[in-house]
Amino acid sequence: MIKNLAALDDGLVSVSGWVETVRDQKKVQFVVLRDESGAVQLVNPRTTDAEGVVVDDEPATTISGLSQGSFVTVSGQLKHDERVKLGGIEIKLASLEVVTHAIPETPIAADSSLDKRMDWRFLDLRQPKASLIFRIQTTFEHALRTYWIEHDFIELHTPKLMASASESRAELFEVEYFDRKAYLAQSPQFFKQMAQSAGFGKIFEVGPAFRADPSFTSRHATEFTSVDSEISWIGSHEDVMQLHEELLVHAFTAVKAKHGEEILGLFGVEVTVPTTPFPRIPLAEAKEIVKSRGYEVPRDDDDMDPEGERQIAAYVAETYGHEFVFLTDYASSIRPFYHMRHEGDASLTNSYDLIFNGTEISTGAQREHRIDVLVEQAVEKGVDPAEIAGYLDFFRYGVPSHGGFGMGLARVLMLMLHQASIREVTYLFRGPTRLEP
Amino acid sequence: MIKNLAALDDGLVSVSGWVETVRDQKKVQFVVLRDESGAVQLVNPRTTDAEGVVVDDEPATTISGLSQGSFVTVSGQLKHDERVKLGGIEIKLASLEVVTHAIPETPIAADSSLDKRMDWRFLDLRQPKASLIFRIQTTFEHALRTYWIEHDFIELHTPKLMASASESRAELFEVEYFDRKAYLAQSPQFFKQMAQSAGFGKIFEVGPAFRADPSFTSRHATEFTSVDSEISWIGSHEDVMQLHEELLVHAFTAVKAKHGEEILGLFGVEVTVPTTPFPRIPLAEAKEIVKSRGYEVPRDDDDMDPEGERQIAAYVAETYGHEFVFLTDYASSIRPFYHMRHEGDASLTNSYDLIFNGTEISTGAQREHRIDVLVEQAVEKGVDPAEIAGYLDFFRYGVPSHGGFGMGLARVLMLMLHQASIREVTYLFRGPTRLEP
Repeated sequence: MIKNLAALDDGLVSVSGWVETVRDQKKVQFVVLRDESGAVQLVNPRTTDAEGVVVDDEPATTISGLSQGSFVTVSGQLKHDERVKLGGIEIKLASLEVVTHAIPETPIAADSSLDKRMDWRFLDLRQPKASLIFRIQTTFEHALRTYWIEHDFIELHTPKLMASASESRAELFEVEYFDRKAYLAQSPQFFKQMAQSAGFGKIFEVGPAFRADPSFTSRHATEFTSVDSEISWIGSHEDVMQLHEELLVHAFTAVKAKHGEEILGLFGVEVTVPTTPFPRIPLAEAKEIVKSRGYEVPRDDDDMDPEGERQIAAYVAETYGHEFVFLTDYASSIRPFYHMRHEGDASLTNSYDLIFNGTEISTGAQREHRIDVLVEQAVEKGVDPAEIAGYLDFFRYGVPSHGGFGMGLARVLMLMLHQASIREVTYLFRGPTRLEP
Repeated sequence: MIKNLAALDDGLVSVSGWVETVRDQKKVQFVVLRDESGAVQLVNPRTTDAEGVVVDDEPATTISGLSQGSFVTVSGQLKHDERVKLGGIEIKLASLEVVTHAIPETPIAADSSLDKRMDWRFLDLRQPKASLIFRIQTTFEHALRTYWIEHDFIELHTPKLMASASESRAELFEVEYFDRKAYLAQSPQFFKQMAQSAGFGKIFEVGPAFRADPSFTSRHATEFTSVDSEISWIGSHEDVMQLHEELLVHAFTAVKAKHGEEILGLFGVEVTVPTTPFPRIPLAEAKEIVKSRGYEVPRDDDDMDPEGERQIAAYVAETYGHEFVFLTDYASSIRPFYHMRHEGDASLTNSYDLIFNGTEISTGAQREHRIDVLVEQAVEKGVDPAEIAGYLDFFRYGVPSHGGFGMGLARVLMLMLHQASIREVTYLFRGPTRLEP
């Protein structure tokens, strides 16, 4: 790999990658060759005949015809030279083999629109920033999983094909399933709760979730990677928040250690490992704070809106110097039926949203595990108990107290890297009008 | 957790779990309490009054009414006593709090049919064998991921919603996608190849795949977890096989180290870490070997059948003492258009199937990366290039040589643990007539 070249002594090397640029000068040819690990300059001084006239020999002729994006394997003499801007090394070419010629046409450029870039995502992803995003994602996820596994969590793969809705019927994708209908899971909610009833204790899942959401915001997708965890024997949502913040500290530490310098270089962002505990603010109080800053949340229900989230995040940044804040104790009126309510005040839930750099990345809660209360709350929310009979069975045959969270992976990456849209940090974005490539 | 009790000194402890059995004897009550880590015996000697008559006090009354499956939190005096069969410890109860009463009905028993057990999967999973399966799965996957990450692979989450088929149109699930149709990905094939064109180098994905396959065998599901990897700059399928066997050695080593004893205890299976290289046998030769053992594969095409796979596995076990075998160089006639063919003999492909304990768990191959050859092979197989135009673009703009494999996670676990069906090792199985729970 190219990143390993700098550590080698001068001498014969062989590397493979794709052609980023060709400068075909009169007396010397330069090629910048890139692979997933970096870029290196190849140099080919032209041969001249006895009279000093340039000769069309190999690999000169091939280089002259090289289109950007062609994949090649080269060998030559590695030379350290601190005058070379690109990493202080170059390779004097001995041979060059073209594996695939790219067609000499570049459908996207640096200034192409996001939508155009998504049409040509495989070319867009060749940019060092893009591949770094997915290396960061890899490190982030692996750190989460390592934390979970060191703490005896079980990894689940819950089914994405369901017989009925798990959240709201409104945003449900319908599948032709032999002679009946199936639905795509909007979240693993029911199935991760099932694991609690099954006595699995502590579980996690990283997998796709699907929402037939017709909106076109920078934060929504019809298919996204959901990071989920659920644990037994909690006292309240506080236990879930503690797990959640520990996981994030672990993952941000790993990302900063492995990619911090590169992130600073390519994104101009200094990754901050958050301190614990993250600030916690009850939602009602947060709305007062936002109001005192001159912003009145324009909603009839008890929820926060995106601008309110930005405002409270600004307050938290100024007051606590923290990029994260748990907004807690959401009103029962705006939470699903399965969120546990406060003992003594049924208008509030044992729940939270996690805000990172001004945008919601996650919802967590203690779940109602008492079957009679659960059925009552379902009925109150207009959910027919008959339709969720299978789910309710999980509670009839015994279940521990439990809770958990679901977190959007792309949102975390978008906010960590100060990107404007989850489209930039999703391998292949899916939206109402985007199913391709 | 219960598994940690044995290491503690005698004294006051508190644990939570569910009631596995209650023996309500005249003078003493025994409860076996289980959590995800193990089981422990609780003992409650009945109080007697001055005349020696048993008194109905607490927790005795509660214990008498305890149904199997109820979740409880208890505290009491831990006592080491080697006469106690269950781990040499017991807890003399001081208090018992019932968190949820299970309804006193047990819909499944040890001898229930597999289908009945799947109806009540959350109760079925309470068996120690079942939870061990998913702890093994967790360890297996984490070992794979750790190997990949230590070798600079990028983890992908490719979309499961596609605009067209990625494999065969025959087994495709159709989704109502706003005002058009989408299809569920049958594999991440196209998208992991896209990563090669994007210059990602080495990638992996563990995620769901969907096949509208109406069959009811013990090896098929309509939704399954696919373990996929794809690497650039390979010379042939041999490079893919080397990666594949190294991954499996790494993962089997981890499983044996962490769960070997428990697997032997609960499943009676000695996990064997395979030696490398795994035996490799060209398919044509394998068919000759099978024939010489008296079995003629009853197929008109050039493929192997399940009995043939068992026969060649038996031969490999006898000859090499190995549980794995790569069958290589499948005929082009039975492989997809994107498998690279032998240089000089287009009737054979640079591909393999991996057989483990007599059943196929994986298909791997070098992919055809030369656009002209790829289009030719597509046409030959009746695939309309216009329908896969987006896929073909990946090759037109340059791509390295590459290859990879897809492996069914449940199949590996089924064969590792000598289970009769993937239903036993899938959290929630999905088949043509099974969408619930």
